[in-house]
Amino acid sequence: MSMPVFARVAIIGCGLIGSSLARGLRQKTLAGEIVICDADAAARARSLALGLGDRVEADPAAAVAGAELVVLAVPMGAYEAVGRAIAPALAPGTIVTDVGSVKQAVIRDLGPLMPETATLIPGHPIAGTENSGPDAGFAGLFDGRWAILTPVPGTDPALVARVAALWRGLGSMVTEMEPAHHDKVLAITSHLPHLIAYTIVGTAVDLEDDLRQEVVSYSASGFRDFTRIAASDPVMWRDVFLNNREAVLEMLQRFNEDLSQLQRAIRWGEGEVLEKCFTRTRDIRRAIIDAKQA
Amino acid sequence: MSMPVFARVAIIGCGLIGSSLARGLRQKTLAGEIVICDADAAARARSLALGLGDRVEADPAAAVAGAELVVLAVPMGAYEAVGRAIAPALAPGTIVTDVGSVKQAVIRDLGPLMPETATLIPGHPIAGTENSGPDAGFAGLFDGRWAILTPVPGTDPALVARVAALWRGLGSMVTEMEPAHHDKVLAITSHLPHLIAYTIVGTAVDLEDDLRQEVVSYSASGFRDFTRIAASDPVMWRDVFLNNREAVLEMLQRFNEDLSQLQRAIRWGEGEVLEKCFTRTRDIRRAIIDAKQA
Repeated sequence: MSMPVFARVAIIGCGLIGSSLARGLRQKTLAGEIVICDADAAARARSLALGLGDRVEADPAAAVAGAELVVLAVPMGAYEAVGRAIAPALAPGTIVTDVGSVKQAVIRDLGPLMPETATLIPGHPIAGTENSGPDAGFAGLFDGRWAILTPVPGTDPALVARVAALWRGLGSMVTEMEPAHHDKVLAITSHLPHLIAYTIVGTAVDLEDDLRQEVVSYSASGFRDFTRIAASDPVMWRDVFLNNREAVLEMLQRFNEDLSQLQRAIRWGEGEVLEKCFTRTRDIRRAIIDAKQA
Repeated sequence: MSMPVFARVAIIGCGLIGSSLARGLRQKTLAGEIVICDADAAARARSLALGLGDRVEADPAAAVAGAELVVLAVPMGAYEAVGRAIAPALAPGTIVTDVGSVKQAVIRDLGPLMPETATLIPGHPIAGTENSGPDAGFAGLFDGRWAILTPVPGTDPALVARVAALWRGLGSMVTEMEPAHHDKVLAITSHLPHLIAYTIVGTAVDLEDDLRQEVVSYSASGFRDFTRIAASDPVMWRDVFLNNREAVLEMLQRFNEDLSQLQRAIRWGEGEVLEKCFTRTRDIRRAIIDAKQA
């Protein structure tokens, strides 16, 4: 059994990520004590039943009292309210981190609320599934995946190293990144793919009845991958798009230009344009397989 | 051991689908004799080495001589040349079917080339992976998946039933469909998803160097599902788009309208529009899981 990295960890929000974190910390003995907090009574009841924490609290202030590390794992739209609730209760020296998919907005919204004696170290584990809630989590979710930390300039490197040690203890590879750069990278690797998957599944939902019924039967031909992505948590994703507007709109603009080019090639029967485009995209798949992220 | 459905089956094109068919027919004893034909010398050599057929031929006319069933499993752009090559060699009573993703074009291009003594019964197994070539196939590819047949009016139902029996023998569920309806259903469930996946992966390939390198590392956040789809065979997909132009352009138009609406909601911070859209797409995923097509 390894020494815990933190004596007490408070996890605010016990969904897919929060509950996976709780399970992983327990399994790897990375926290001396785990406190779970969720605003939703049903999620608290399931967290208790599943034994995800040593304690389960409804009040964020009660949950963070005495914690060495606080992890926000709620939709980003709830950050400000949670920040205001926990700020007065944070013990001196507490590290506050999060798992949100946008990082500039966290620094902008949560940073000013933190007391001077606490340190905000924004984080983002690149892991997830389309499922939600305390039952959806599993201890191995972060194993072999990246965790990105985006500390602001001047953050004590020793504190960043402790958060990094936690993620490494869960099997993650850890890297640091500029918040603005993080938000651009994720706009193309995650936010735009989700937006497009939600859109095409929505387009199918709107089809005339006779077509729509068959979309389900014949989904194995490509569509089902999109439905998996488009089954992700709606509130979490609403908040991602509201909080990473500029980067998402920029990537969407590029995507639209590229799609228009292919649309034109289909309309005018330009087979060589299509084949050229479809050929060069294979290389990136091979790179992902080589990087063991497939 | 069951009785073979056909005494001799000629498979023209030994890629993912053709080689899976050959393996499945062998495993389930659905064909007395299997003849493989491929224009590519390397594919023929692999087919021989893998023992996929009783014979491997370079010449389509030689391959189909004496066959009871001929299956075209080449990219659709090659149908006309293959049709011209095999027509004089087809024995009276031969059934010609195919596995192409568009069905109106098959009837338009291949139908007039067939001798009166042969019967064209277009088909489309809704199964596949992103891998290509004789090594990519496996006997279970069609198990639990749909096979769609689109016979033209007046086709002898007994012959359609024999083709259906072959697919059922491979574990597929079989249905008949109007060719035009098939092409619309597949435009939304398969062709548009592939076009969009190719586009977004292409958009990522075009990124500035510093961003592009990180797309691979952080692909686990959604992007990798698109890269898998966008690794599919470029020539096959070029031919799909060239041959199902109208239906794809119509679905693409609907998709573009829906994407513009979400783009506008992101720009103006309309969270309720986003959440509403992201919520209703979950139901279709549940339906796919219930239909065991997930």
